[in-house]
Amino acid sequence: MESNRLLVISAHAGDFVWRAAGAIALAASRGERVKVLCLSFGERGESAKAWREGRQLDEIKELRRAEATKAAAVLGAEIAFLDAGDYPLSRTDELTDRIVRVYREVRPSVVLTHPLADPYNQDHPTAARMALDARVLAQAVGYDAPGDPIGAPQVYFFEPHQPEQCDFKPNVLLDITPVFETKRAAMECLPAQQHMWDYYTDLAKRRGVQLQRNAGPNLGLVHDTKGEAYVRFYPQVTEVLA
Amino acid sequence: MESNRLLVISAHAGDFVWRAAGAIALAASRGERVKVLCLSFGERGESAKAWREGRQLDEIKELRRAEATKAAAVLGAEIAFLDAGDYPLSRTDELTDRIVRVYREVRPSVVLTHPLADPYNQDHPTAARMALDARVLAQAVGYDAPGDPIGAPQVYFFEPHQPEQCDFKPNVLLDITPVFETKRAAMECLPAQQHMWDYYTDLAKRRGVQLQRNAGPNLGLVHDTKGEAYVRFYPQVTEVLA
Amino acid sequence: MESNRLLVISAHAGDFVWRAAGAIALAASRGERVKVLCLSFGERGESAKAWREGRQLDEIKELRRAEATKAAAVLGAEIAFLDAGDYPLSRTDELTDRIVRVYREVRPSVVLTHPLADPYNQDHPTAARMALDARVLAQAVGYDAPGDPIGAPQVYFFEPHQPEQCDFKPNVLLDITPVFETKRAAMECLPAQQHMWDYYTDLAKRRGVQLQRNAGPNLGLVHDTKGEAYVRFYPQVTEVLA
Amino acid sequence: MESNRLLVISAHAGDFVWRAAGAIALAASRGERVKVLCLSFGERGESAKAWREGRQLDEIKELRRAEATKAAAVLGAEIAFLDAGDYPLSRTDELTDRIVRVYREVRPSVVLTHPLADPYNQDHPTAARMALDARVLAQAVGYDAPGDPIGAPQVYFFEPHQPEQCDFKPNVLLDITPVFETKRAAMECLPAQQHMWDYYTDLAKRRGVQLQRNAGPNLGLVHDTKGEAYVRFYPQVTEVLA
Amino acid sequence: MESNRLLVISAHAGDFVWRAAGAIALAASRGERVKVLCLSFGERGESAKAWREGRQLDEIKELRRAEATKAAAVLGAEIAFLDAGDYPLSRTDELTDRIVRVYREVRPSVVLTHPLADPYNQDHPTAARMALDARVLAQAVGYDAPGDPIGAPQVYFFEPHQPEQCDFKPNVLLDITPVFETKRAAMECLPAQQHMWDYYTDLAKRRGVQLQRNAGPNLGLVHDTKGEAYVRFYPQVTEVLA
Amino acid sequence: MESNRLLVISAHAGDFVWRAAGAIALAASRGERVKVLCLSFGERGESAKAWREGRQLDEIKELRRAEATKAAAVLGAEIAFLDAGDYPLSRTDELTDRIVRVYREVRPSVVLTHPLADPYNQDHPTAARMALDARVLAQAVGYDAPGDPIGAPQVYFFEPHQPEQCDFKPNVLLDITPVFETKRAAMECLPAQQHMWDYYTDLAKRRGVQLQRNAGPNLGLVHDTKGEAYVRFYPQVTEVLA
Repeated sequence: MESNRLLVISAHAGDFVWRAAGAIALAASRGERVKVLCLSFGERGESAKAWREGRQLDEIKELRRAEATKAAAVLGAEIAFLDAGDYPLSRTDELTDRIVRVYREVRPSVVLTHPLADPYNQDHPTAARMALDARVLAQAVGYDAPGDPIGAPQVYFFEPHQPEQCDFKPNVLLDITPVFETKRAAMECLPAQQHMWDYYTDLAKRRGVQLQRNAGPNLGLVHDTKGEAYVRFYPQVTEVLA
Repeated sequence: MESNRLLVISAHAGDFVWRAAGAIALAASRGERVKVLCLSFGERGESAKAWREGRQLDEIKELRRAEATKAAAVLGAEIAFLDAGDYPLSRTDELTDRIVRVYREVRPSVVLTHPLADPYNQDHPTAARMALDARVLAQAVGYDAPGDPIGAPQVYFFEPHQPEQCDFKPNVLLDITPVFETKRAAMECLPAQQHMWDYYTDLAKRRGVQLQRNAGPNLGLVHDTKGEAYVRFYPQVTEVLA
Repeated sequence: MESNRLLVISAHAGDFVWRAAGAIALAASRGERVKVLCLSFGERGESAKAWREGRQLDEIKELRRAEATKAAAVLGAEIAFLDAGDYPLSRTDELTDRIVRVYREVRPSVVLTHPLADPYNQDHPTAARMALDARVLAQAVGYDAPGDPIGAPQVYFFEPHQPEQCDFKPNVLLDITPVFETKRAAMECLPAQQHMWDYYTDLAKRRGVQLQRNAGPNLGLVHDTKGEAYVRFYPQVTEVLA
Repeated sequence: MESNRLLVISAHAGDFVWRAAGAIALAASRGERVKVLCLSFGERGESAKAWREGRQLDEIKELRRAEATKAAAVLGAEIAFLDAGDYPLSRTDELTDRIVRVYREVRPSVVLTHPLADPYNQDHPTAARMALDARVLAQAVGYDAPGDPIGAPQVYFFEPHQPEQCDFKPNVLLDITPVFETKRAAMECLPAQQHMWDYYTDLAKRRGVQLQRNAGPNLGLVHDTKGEAYVRFYPQVTEVLA
Repeated sequence: MESNRLLVISAHAGDFVWRAAGAIALAASRGERVKVLCLSFGERGESAKAWREGRQLDEIKELRRAEATKAAAVLGAEIAFLDAGDYPLSRTDELTDRIVRVYREVRPSVVLTHPLADPYNQDHPTAARMALDARVLAQAVGYDAPGDPIGAPQVYFFEPHQPEQCDFKPNVLLDITPVFETKRAAMECLPAQQHMWDYYTDLAKRRGVQLQRNAGPNLGLVHDTKGEAYVRFYPQVTEVLA
Repeated sequence: MESNRLLVISAHAGDFVWRAAGAIALAASRGERVKVLCLSFGERGESAKAWREGRQLDEIKELRRAEATKAAAVLGAEIAFLDAGDYPLSRTDELTDRIVRVYREVRPSVVLTHPLADPYNQDHPTAARMALDARVLAQAVGYDAPGDPIGAPQVYFFEPHQPEQCDFKPNVLLDITPVFETKRAAMECLPAQQHMWDYYTDLAKRRGVQLQRNAGPNLGLVHDTKGEAYVRFYPQVTEVLA
């Protein structure tokens, strides 16, 4: 059996840090390949501070690229940028095709992306829709892209900023306690959003409390558990109910 | 860490065989304790053939008890009957309390029961409702029943007869290939519903096909996979996304 | 093939008139047996005017009984009253059993009742729940009530007063144009709620407009169509898609 | 126009503090009457610490009564206890009737209660169901209880502990900044659950952030806003869209 | 605090009259700025009568423009037309950008548009999708359009023609009694759809009845109330639960 | 009244055989016109075997065309291919327009197409979306395409491969017993997917069992019933509840 490979597809450059850094660090700590694919830099929609400081578009892109690259390195992940533009990120066959090619190269066993609804940011569902479409295309032997067709990877949606408004009902709680300090360090690579550091530290604690409340009687959970919440999109395939 | 313990709560005597025999046999084959709790014998609602043959109520109960006991033995499970009556099975605090006591004794890490909607048989959601209520009560130190409060076991709903009409959208597909012959043998302990043997064999094949279609690229699935479908009710707690 | 038999189960004495008189009159006009079963008279919850006039409980019940009996006669239907009390109408095994006995006697091919949600009147879902439970019980040969087990009748929910708030999304629009004058005459048997006569006449027009908008190209609809809206609860069984 | 009157119906003695103390304190600070109705003391299900300390049932009830009474006083609210038992709290016509009588006495313009689903605590939906049923009964002139029928009060569900798992999608965010210190003081009246003090302070901050994000451009929000989230159950009636 | 500004975004030229004229007239009567933005004239899909009379495309557009302009004037609103074509109205980045520019100019505190589902007219959800997307884009300082980024306006969906089929469950009922005559006068500016005048007058009465039924006990509602129904899309932010 | 005309719109060349051959054969056997419209050949996404055999794109298209044409002939249906490409099939105004023209020519009373969700194949919802859009456009007198505007045909979604994952809750069960041998013969025209022959034979039996379970007491169903499941998208218009 091959080892796992994780592909993280996010609309903007910072999303993977706040929402999935724990899963990324865990996979990397197990020695698995992890690749983060940023469809845009979030240069227009998620760089308010830089615009207010009077910076130019290219400058902002480079800033975001540098920060995200640094955060990925902290987490032990590769990173790539498709520079497809944001606000709006537009769904096109051409961009979907570029994502297919990444699937064919990485051959992920697990994919992380945004949920399919977000009334506060349409770029997120747009990215998720293309991530899902590309996943199916990459499985087809008849699809004209380099590489062999891939097997069907599991897909998990990571947590949006206002989960209830995005119909985000977590069905997986991931214990990220062993790597939380790494996640914190990755967050600190994004200085423009410093108020988020504590916000997502608090969220990790809260999801940790829920994790303990939902853990079965056999799970030996340590104090001060940290968690990340996910929605698994396809049925889980398993050999044991536990 | 303690070994797992499986508690299966079903409205009628036969339900656990058609819907969950694979999970039961798998757990038993791993050496785990499994207990099946039948709230009724299904003596009125699921014994049409016996009634048409002119049998009496007590006779039918004994028949159903004997068959279910035999099937449980084949699967490697304990079985108990609360004889609470069916058609209708009624939700009462007294019956719920009897179920709490079973929780406190078995101390399950996993619970299997019916889904919460079934337009064809109200006994099923009624049983599920009590199974869920009793699970929460058994966790309370202040609840007045013998034994210590239990940890929070995972809950899975097993598959109803008409899944789409019961809003049953499986999120777990269990590979029961290694124990399918045992499931078939348990089904054959229920001779009054012989047409169901093939029906549920076909269902196992079909769920097996879906299992393969949803399996990630790393899962080494054998030919002629058999499956059972479940809905996990509470979030999964995990240390790895896979 | 036997002719159809229609059973209408309503929480209170007047419901069947406002919500289903068209379906009742149509069935009666085809020579089918129709029986209306009122679980209560609506003596507490739907008789505000009589209470304000200072009438006593028994008097109000008789008033409601007389009016409903007259309306049923206009429509060509039998009527029976179980006098189970309203506000609240309580779900009990005993009352459900009385409804089972009516099923076994009438042997309906079609059942009309309330929808399963109504935030403005809990008696309505309570009646519907018992109507559905009794339907399943009456089908069981092992259920201890006079008469043979029945076949599975279709179930339609009739329209509540605030449809959107009751999650009432009609999937059947019934053309009641040929019997609308009969429906109006039945409504006029209920003088205490005179403002409802026009209200439900307007509703019939509106549902008629929707009926025309949803009718296929082949349906020859007349001008000034009147309609009633229903939700079919179980799948339709048919030999033709049309 | 009369002034508002607020009725808060909770399953257990502490719920109103964690979930609705802000709304209560705001109403009291406007000089409105506020009454908290606790159906039980939470003596079995929400007093784990006291049980572990070996206290007796009556002692625990008195402890919970004293703490809740003190918290209500801090908030400026009346409080009453129905002592109906918890774990399980059972839905009965008799208990619903007692709640009706409170509605008829308080004549609330606004009601706060639990949401209708909570997989972690069935007492909460049970209390909510009776709160809603009693509200409708209390409006009926024919319902046999002292006092005149009431007008239709608005109903808001307050926030459960795991909102996403309870299908709790807030549609109202209440600014409780002016009274947050009072809420904190009320929480501190419940020493057995000290870890909750910070938990619900953090929640108030988080809902405050969302409040600012959802506020229109005209709302002058102060720094460090605190919020409580609610679900309005019936449509809002208004003279202005704003 | 600035006064409110209302932006109404509709797919076709007539929609704002039937569905939102009450809200528009109320806002105008309070002296607020109101701007109606028609993405198309409804020249193909909603001008059946004109086509049957043999008119040409440009002629029909002018007719619709004139009528809508007159209706807007009656209501006290500005109006603009983007002439983007209908049947189908297509979602494009270019059209979305034109809508962003209107947001940046009007700086609305409240936006009215179509709901996100309509099986009878895909132009409606398409318009709504762009109205929502543009709202988010207009808030971003990095979005390249004239004017400053706007604050987050509230969004309300107005009522579609077949509400239940569009999953339209109103959560706001607006009292339009004071301006109903103005709404009627605006409707009468659209002579091609004369049958709609009475249809929407009846709807206003019906929503008025529901408004009274949902109003709290303190609201002093006059006889013959007229209403419009809305769905608020984002959570309400408030300082009082009432 | 005109006779019925059936239009079947499928994303790929083979879909209509597995999912709707029974409905097609029934309509043809009644002498009705049936036209199958394949938007693509399924040349990339559903021809894995041919690609693995090393065939070229054009060759695969011709193979699929030939097989589908043969199957349509067996069923008694016309067939046309739009060759719009698959994997991905893209939603465009131009392709929608070509479908409108087919509507205007066939003038269907009934339309069959895919459901609106399919996480395993985005081409299916894309085809359905265009089928629905074109249906509305074809009804407009102002839409610029040859032929008169059509009446509103009923729409049914046929069954996807993993129904529960596609939120496919059947509300119509069609008895295809009389034509099942014809369906089998049509399936056997598609030799590349031989394992599907038995799969869809089993499905037909299973839907047949459900059909019998949901049939009313009057329906005289024969042994070994075969069925197909459908979801009706618009309300049924009827003159009788049965």
